[in-house]
Amino acid sequence: MQKHLRLSDLQGYDRFTRANILNSLSGFKSASLIGTVNKNGQANLAIFSNLVHIGADPALVGFINRPLDAAPHTLSNIQETGSYTINHITADIFPQAHQSSAKYPADISEFDATGLTASYREGTLAPFLAESLVQYSLELKQIIPIELNGTFFVIGAIQEIFYPSDIQEEDGFLALEKAGSLCSLGNSAYYETKRLGKLAYAKP
Amino acid sequence: MQKHLRLSDLQGYDRFTRANILNSLSGFKSASLIGTVNKNGQANLAIFSNLVHIGADPALVGFINRPLDAAPHTLSNIQETGSYTINHITADIFPQAHQSSAKYPADISEFDATGLTASYREGTLAPFLAESLVQYSLELKQIIPIELNGTFFVIGAIQEIFYPSDIQEEDGFLALEKAGSLCSLGNSAYYETKRLGKLAYAKP
Repeated sequence: MQKHLRLSDLQGYDRFTRANILNSLSGFKSASLIGTVNKNGQANLAIFSNLVHIGADPALVGFINRPLDAAPHTLSNIQETGSYTINHITADIFPQAHQSSAKYPADISEFDATGLTASYREGTLAPFLAESLVQYSLELKQIIPIELNGTFFVIGAIQEIFYPSDIQEEDGFLALEKAGSLCSLGNSAYYETKRLGKLAYAKP
Repeated sequence: MQKHLRLSDLQGYDRFTRANILNSLSGFKSASLIGTVNKNGQANLAIFSNLVHIGADPALVGFINRPLDAAPHTLSNIQETGSYTINHITADIFPQAHQSSAKYPADISEFDATGLTASYREGTLAPFLAESLVQYSLELKQIIPIELNGTFFVIGAIQEIFYPSDIQEEDGFLALEKAGSLCSLGNSAYYETKRLGKLAYAKP
């Protein structure tokens, strides 16, 4: 049976139910852990799922950061240092990745709190996640405040990329399922994927 | 073996290889078909994968529209009418969904060209996709031009939602895998999903 919700129905739900409906409605997302550090060297790790590819030349990725009172640390660290890393999540670490969404104080490193490992590389201020097989670093390009609801659209340019060489296909494509990269749905559910097909460039 | 690409390596690839690497690097996406209509009633259907949940109250969804010369019709229709629909893709229709990315002239409906079915509902100007089990309509709220590369971040407010009632869990969450909603990777690959776990709200 088909269910039909109107805007007025949505407004009748409590905020948790409404958030669960709307967070899942928009579909599977590339849940990733963002690593940052503040100017005093305090590391931070947080899970973000609302991530988009903006373009390949320049190589731009964007993500939605919630309002500052809900999620202050990642954004302020990125503003302070201009540097962040994005790290894929695998089946081995998804419970720890999820735990990074808890509201720890600013002086707690989520790496320590969740038992994950920060890995620093020459040339990148922000820490990578050692447990992650697919990692990339970014340099902040633009923060666009979204006035409609107090969120931020954060745009960065890709600097360095790390991945297992055997997941790459001839055309450059990274078969992330071979690295075990997961996707997420809503705030809470994690999924592995199975490829149905890879299709040629479509022409009329 | 781990592969390491620097920005300078990326710039050495031809544009297709670079696009394939970068489109897949950012992870699995919620490939969806966006339905629109222009002021003369000409329908359009196009696949978009860079889609984010921006917030639940108000209920906002954003997507990245490529530069106007590459992808003009969906954006101009949304500007003309303020109305669009987002429709999930299932295994039955993913080849047709992919075919909608071909560059058809403005006077060709991708519904007709791909053999998919437009479905009009009272109160929504834009067509829904009849074959899609999870559908929602939006009203345009804001178009943010991204000057870094000529793309657009298009933000809409959700108006009406349709989904099979048996996919909804007690907390509101929509188990999209039960509706067969797919995700995509890069420009070309389509995936089904298998849930590993759904975790409780994380606390420190």
